[in-house]
Amino acid sequence: MFYMYICSKTKIDMYRTHNCGELKMENVGDKVTLSAWVQKSRDLGGLTFIDLRDRFGITQLVFNMDTNAPLCLEARKLGREDVVRVKGNVSERSNKNKNISTGDIEIEVLSLEVLNKAETPPFTIENETDGGEELRMKYRFLDLRRAPIRDNIVLRHKVAQACRTYLSSVDFLEIETPFLIKSTPEGARDFVVPSRLNEGQFYALPQSPQTFKQLLMVSGFDRYMQIVKCFRDEDLRADRQPEFTQIDCEMAFVEQEDILNVFEGLVKHLFKMVKGVDLPDFERMTYKEAITKYGSDKPDLRFDMRFNDLTELMQNKGFKVFDEAEVVLGIRVEGASNFTRKQLDKLTDFVRSQQVGAKGLVYCKFNEDGTTKSSIDKFYDESQREAWGITTGCKKGDLLLVLSGTSKHTPKAMNMLRLEMADRLQLIQDDVYKPLWVVDFPLVEYDDDSQRWHAIHHPFTAPKEEDIQKMDHSPGEVNANAYDMVINGVEIGGGSIRIHDRLIQEKVFELLGMDKLEYTEKFGFLLDAFKYGAPPHGGIALGFDRLCALMGGDASIRDYIAFPKNNMGRDLMLDAPSVIEKVQLDELSLKLNC
Amino acid sequence: MFYMYICSKTKIDMYRTHNCGELKMENVGDKVTLSAWVQKSRDLGGLTFIDLRDRFGITQLVFNMDTNAPLCLEARKLGREDVVRVKGNVSERSNKNKNISTGDIEIEVLSLEVLNKAETPPFTIENETDGGEELRMKYRFLDLRRAPIRDNIVLRHKVAQACRTYLSSVDFLEIETPFLIKSTPEGARDFVVPSRLNEGQFYALPQSPQTFKQLLMVSGFDRYMQIVKCFRDEDLRADRQPEFTQIDCEMAFVEQEDILNVFEGLVKHLFKMVKGVDLPDFERMTYKEAITKYGSDKPDLRFDMRFNDLTELMQNKGFKVFDEAEVVLGIRVEGASNFTRKQLDKLTDFVRSQQVGAKGLVYCKFNEDGTTKSSIDKFYDESQREAWGITTGCKKGDLLLVLSGTSKHTPKAMNMLRLEMADRLQLIQDDVYKPLWVVDFPLVEYDDDSQRWHAIHHPFTAPKEEDIQKMDHSPGEVNANAYDMVINGVEIGGGSIRIHDRLIQEKVFELLGMDKLEYTEKFGFLLDAFKYGAPPHGGIALGFDRLCALMGGDASIRDYIAFPKNNMGRDLMLDAPSVIEKVQLDELSLKLNC
Repeated sequence: MFYMYICSKTKIDMYRTHNCGELKMENVGDKVTLSAWVQKSRDLGGLTFIDLRDRFGITQLVFNMDTNAPLCLEARKLGREDVVRVKGNVSERSNKNKNISTGDIEIEVLSLEVLNKAETPPFTIENETDGGEELRMKYRFLDLRRAPIRDNIVLRHKVAQACRTYLSSVDFLEIETPFLIKSTPEGARDFVVPSRLNEGQFYALPQSPQTFKQLLMVSGFDRYMQIVKCFRDEDLRADRQPEFTQIDCEMAFVEQEDILNVFEGLVKHLFKMVKGVDLPDFERMTYKEAITKYGSDKPDLRFDMRFNDLTELMQNKGFKVFDEAEVVLGIRVEGASNFTRKQLDKLTDFVRSQQVGAKGLVYCKFNEDGTTKSSIDKFYDESQREAWGITTGCKKGDLLLVLSGTSKHTPKAMNMLRLEMADRLQLIQDDVYKPLWVVDFPLVEYDDDSQRWHAIHHPFTAPKEEDIQKMDHSPGEVNANAYDMVINGVEIGGGSIRIHDRLIQEKVFELLGMDKLEYTEKFGFLLDAFKYGAPPHGGIALGFDRLCALMGGDASIRDYIAFPKNNMGRDLMLDAPSVIEKVQLDELSLKLNC
Repeated sequence: MFYMYICSKTKIDMYRTHNCGELKMENVGDKVTLSAWVQKSRDLGGLTFIDLRDRFGITQLVFNMDTNAPLCLEARKLGREDVVRVKGNVSERSNKNKNISTGDIEIEVLSLEVLNKAETPPFTIENETDGGEELRMKYRFLDLRRAPIRDNIVLRHKVAQACRTYLSSVDFLEIETPFLIKSTPEGARDFVVPSRLNEGQFYALPQSPQTFKQLLMVSGFDRYMQIVKCFRDEDLRADRQPEFTQIDCEMAFVEQEDILNVFEGLVKHLFKMVKGVDLPDFERMTYKEAITKYGSDKPDLRFDMRFNDLTELMQNKGFKVFDEAEVVLGIRVEGASNFTRKQLDKLTDFVRSQQVGAKGLVYCKFNEDGTTKSSIDKFYDESQREAWGITTGCKKGDLLLVLSGTSKHTPKAMNMLRLEMADRLQLIQDDVYKPLWVVDFPLVEYDDDSQRWHAIHHPFTAPKEEDIQKMDHSPGEVNANAYDMVINGVEIGGGSIRIHDRLIQEKVFELLGMDKLEYTEKFGFLLDAFKYGAPPHGGIALGFDRLCALMGGDASIRDYIAFPKNNMGRDLMLDAPSVIEKVQLDELSLKLNC
């Protein structure tokens, strides 16, 4: 039962009886009041038409020179983005517009009042605008009026509501975690907040509520969820924001399988509720398989072109480049045997670009007439090329593309080539979704720069029980109960089963190069918590900005955030960050050192 | 239609088939698995009983020495807060417990596994605990296990869900506003965040999303809502938190009446949905009336004792104290004529305390026998005392309490005396709610210290249209379209109709002592926004922590926040804030100045 007191006393009708998206044939004859923005006007001599716009839609106003000349003259003075209130009668249009919800009707205006006059906006407020990126960010409040951006924000709202409704219905509790917390070992990425009341001390803004959600499991809250802002002071890459939003969740008394099922359910629910799309069941793939077959831990499964390992087949035939390579990889490009010399040269340029970094590209055409032709025919005869066809599945009309080099770099280069080919051949259809769980990530990887092991996920991730033995002698071989959710090649989120045993947690901290003093100071509260009855638990965090962008069909997250920052972390509208006054610095016991 | 994929693949039953709150008579005979915490155990020789606890409830386990001695011996070793998994059969209890949901059944345990052993907690995890405030804050994760605190957090969850469901159903959009923003003129209360990428510059954390929600109205989002963290670096008073949560809302094309109706509806909805309580319609009272009748802008209407102005009646009768006072106020205390000399002396001490600051207390008893007796009978005869009775409504058995002094201070002192009397006489019943809108606040008040006008609400509040003329010559007489929601003497929130006219906004900034340079630098983006078609708009912010505490029946907000800070803004569990490393300071181009 939904409880509705609204409008019990007074209907909201001083400014409007209806919004601009709801009047239909059944309202014809009604006297209505509308308040909204002037989208545009057309003066056809005897008649003046105005499109009135609000968030809900567009309604056509009509002013008649014959029946009310003074009012019509007033209407002609209206400019784009003026805010007006009109009263009038709903009438049937002679010329109906099937593209808008109110296209059957128009308003014969009886009175018109300008609520706020607008200057000419610095760019056109239409679906396609003439405003540059910077100008639109400075006047973000105007850019947000454009339908494509507005629709993104509305989609985000819907996703948030559907998300909480689903999680709440399966016993998750929304619990707010603090924003003013303690700086952690990965502290270099923390934004810090000087404390005035605690001189010389700083809070940190959370990179994620990780330890808090684990503590909530220790507290017995069983299932926790929050759609929450997180902060990371990174050198900003394209499409990263210093503040971003996570769907953050944790569950107690679960194994990995339980979490995968709950959150596969969540994302299916979101797609169904918000987009009406039935997602297929999520595929499962180990990290190792993903790297081997796609050269990426977030493969795009909307098209095939899995890697074929051709090392054995192609080495020792006299071609030095392959003979010296650690690995030779090939992908079958279906129906691309007709690629021209020029196209292949361009591909070669692409793989040699700094971004991809391969030395060169080998190809073999499997022509429609049954012949084969490769760029290394000098070393490989027809029968060998046919063997390649059998191994890679290349048939008449296909193209085989081959890269070679180190086993570390070559899969990455091949991944980029694979994505490039999908793009060039337009293999990716709109509104196709291929969701995937990548599982069995390694626990740690060795970082040559800092000469120590780093957590792949984070220091709280549980090693697989059968691998715990290996932690002492070969940590690189230890797999973790960690998983990523990937849709269409986009990493939507990731999580893990956590450590809930104090001794294993200490062991992992030590593996990561922390000594007892350090981890006690930084994470003493968590180790303490594990002393007093910590349940087995695990969780996940989904990138909310990213998920919304994926659902909205965009690659960039920026227009799914109401007030985003630019690549320097600046808010161009506010002109922030900015200098603060000396008195503020003094109060914080700080001095600038620049 | 609700969409449910959960458990489609694998039921979550490795750790448990049921939680500790759901097994009932209909489950008798079922084989179940439970995982949870040991609340306590009772060893009755042949039988050992264990209360197993999770968030959902408590289930009794039984171990039988006769049928399975080894298992029973294992069970006897279990300590409080151990985490265990048990498998067993549900059977009917011989001795039923009507106080818990699972009181009809118990589990005959077949197998027992300790998932995590617990050390003895530093305080008892029961409804009543032996832990002191500081200890419980340090081990907050354990304090959160106690049912009273856990229930608060669950209540908060429910209020949040019900709030968004309601607002969403009436077309509010949840839109996230940024946390890294620009420092504002009330900058002294801003927490600031140094920017590494923008050397020497700082973000501020928002004290509220005020300007953003106004921009969203300018953008045409029409109705905005967010349950959002806000930050204020104040010297902390009892029960203030440096980070707190608001239900933050804004609406376009509305008048004050519209907003009052929508949010009266919201709060009624929340009480009904979460507590099953039907709130009465909200009273309305002007600020002036509230001060005159109750000496407070947040009067508690659960009991009467409105002020009577006795100045005219009591002056010029030879009693110098009253003759020299600016105002003489009295309250009728029903049925208190039997107060003893000692009780009245204590009341006199109370009003003379530093907190109240009155010079003394005058009383008059209207005795049951029809006689009257006051503490100033020397100056006032029986007939005069009877006149007091008529004015104040005092009847046989009542007590009249009178304070006098300056017109600024006396109502405040009388307010405290009024609340004190309600407390002493236990006039306040549980679960009675008296909601109220206080309206027509003044726009500004003069501050003697800074020698300038300060905004009562904030600088964006619209003056009442009929008072705009007065802004030039008598700003103190200008009323604002501002309102507070008060329930049971607690200010739950407040809001206003905002200025949407650039010229009026500039006028208010100037009235508040800002020059053009200053307000352009700080609020140029808002003034800009008002140029391009800003609609009339207004909104409200409700204190979410405070609302939850009120609904939970507590005066303090602290136990409605999962991880609160103490009065010095410290998180005792994390030991934050803390010092950060020099390398971090260097990166931020900062030096400590202490």
